[in-house]
Amino acid sequence: MTLPDVSELLVRVNYSEVDQMGVVYHARYIVWLDMARTEHLRARGSSYRDLESRGYRLVVGELTVRYRQPARYDDLIRVRSWVGELASRRVTFEYAIERAEDSHLLATASTAMMVLSDAMTPTRLPDDIRAALVGASGAGT
Amino acid sequence: MTLPDVSELLVRVNYSEVDQMGVVYHARYIVWLDMARTEHLRARGSSYRDLESRGYRLVVGELTVRYRQPARYDDLIRVRSWVGELASRRVTFEYAIERAEDSHLLATASTAMMVLSDAMTPTRLPDDIRAALVGASGAGT
Amino acid sequence: MTLPDVSELLVRVNYSEVDQMGVVYHARYIVWLDMARTEHLRARGSSYRDLESRGYRLVVGELTVRYRQPARYDDLIRVRSWVGELASRRVTFEYAIERAEDSHLLATASTAMMVLSDAMTPTRLPDDIRAALVGASGAGT
Amino acid sequence: MTLPDVSELLVRVNYSEVDQMGVVYHARYIVWLDMARTEHLRARGSSYRDLESRGYRLVVGELTVRYRQPARYDDLIRVRSWVGELASRRVTFEYAIERAEDSHLLATASTAMMVLSDAMTPTRLPDDIRAALVGASGAGT
Repeated sequence: MTLPDVSELLVRVNYSEVDQMGVVYHARYIVWLDMARTEHLRARGSSYRDLESRGYRLVVGELTVRYRQPARYDDLIRVRSWVGELASRRVTFEYAIERAEDSHLLATASTAMMVLSDAMTPTRLPDDIRAALVGASGAGT
Repeated sequence: MTLPDVSELLVRVNYSEVDQMGVVYHARYIVWLDMARTEHLRARGSSYRDLESRGYRLVVGELTVRYRQPARYDDLIRVRSWVGELASRRVTFEYAIERAEDSHLLATASTAMMVLSDAMTPTRLPDDIRAALVGASGAGT
Repeated sequence: MTLPDVSELLVRVNYSEVDQMGVVYHARYIVWLDMARTEHLRARGSSYRDLESRGYRLVVGELTVRYRQPARYDDLIRVRSWVGELASRRVTFEYAIERAEDSHLLATASTAMMVLSDAMTPTRLPDDIRAALVGASGAGT
Repeated sequence: MTLPDVSELLVRVNYSEVDQMGVVYHARYIVWLDMARTEHLRARGSSYRDLESRGYRLVVGELTVRYRQPARYDDLIRVRSWVGELASRRVTFEYAIERAEDSHLLATASTAMMVLSDAMTPTRLPDDIRAALVGASGAGT
């Protein structure tokens, strides 16, 4: 069995992200997921910026978020992310969003990403990115 | 059988919503869903602002979006929304996001809303709002 | 003397725009200014989308906003905009942001726009856009 | 003479911040200024969250930004901030926004902040916050 290779992103809640209920507006979490994907690639020696300059796009095809507890202004947030499924033209990322201070789980999320060319047509993920996404802990399996 | 009572919101894509792929960034759709809910209530003679001032909150507990085709800068977008399920402490809204020009379907979405008091604890939806959400076409059933 | 040719944009404050003080977050006004410029061009028979597809960009070089009174959730906002100065490679827009209900002035703003080619180098504004920006009331001068 | 006490915030440009010109959308810089102010207070042993819970607000009354060079996706940005003027009911922050990699100056900005009570009326800044804003380098003057 291979445990998923989990990345961590830390993000400080800023004032623009909080609504008049005093909690982080639900759409802001979606940006944190994006930032977490970028850091997941970087932590594996790859780069989404490079991937894009080589003519590939990872585009969100489906998004699910389950909100459990609110985040608040100035909270330090930890977004843990890992690859759920990896097919030739599709990658699924899973996420756990926690308050860093006490590791309290605030939300879980999943995004199914389509692999597109820069002409926005489906294509295969290049092998080096595929290997980077599978990650170190899966390298020997 | 009762057909759902569907609201329509028109929104023009602005420059801030479009990313460097030249398409609307996926998180922006979530704000359109919120605007659509507000207009759904207004179209039924109710108001989310009033609901909030009376001590109620409708908070997103779960969110799902399926993206099919991209929206682009300056597109006029139609968001059609309707109530899917209505329980005493929970309301589910369904959405279809279309390009207004040709009614092409761009995305579908669903949000499960929790009914909370201003102390952020679960509570029952007041009867007038419940009736407004059921809507005109369901009034006689 | 030529009075400025003023456009009006109406925008409804949505929930994502309001912060935990219960007022519209100050950075959100900047997006309204952008929307107002787009509508200013459209109202004069032009289109920023077309301008961009012809290889021109109007890029904000300098921005000033003076905030006087807060806007709140669900307020209907009127953004009045007009061209202040028009040089060959630079256009200045001026704005008054009002609460539509009572025409109360909430903020004033100014943006100096550079005219750039799609290679992002300074260029001259095409004559038809220049004429559109000068507007109807200036046509006979 | 007292040199200003300068804070530094590092922020990585994320995908949501970049527009279809491939550069950071101009309104996003305004959020970085806000984040920079929060870190300026934290670096001096104070906290905007605490200040707010004590009933004070620092509200932007006037904002000026001069954009010189664009920031791009995945750039690491350094925001340097310092107090320009400090009066009893008003604080002015100045900012320099740089690309961290080569310290290239991208933009400069200024925000004049009003000190308000939680009833949103003008009030005096408390002495401890005033001392924190003056900062270490000004302590002996």
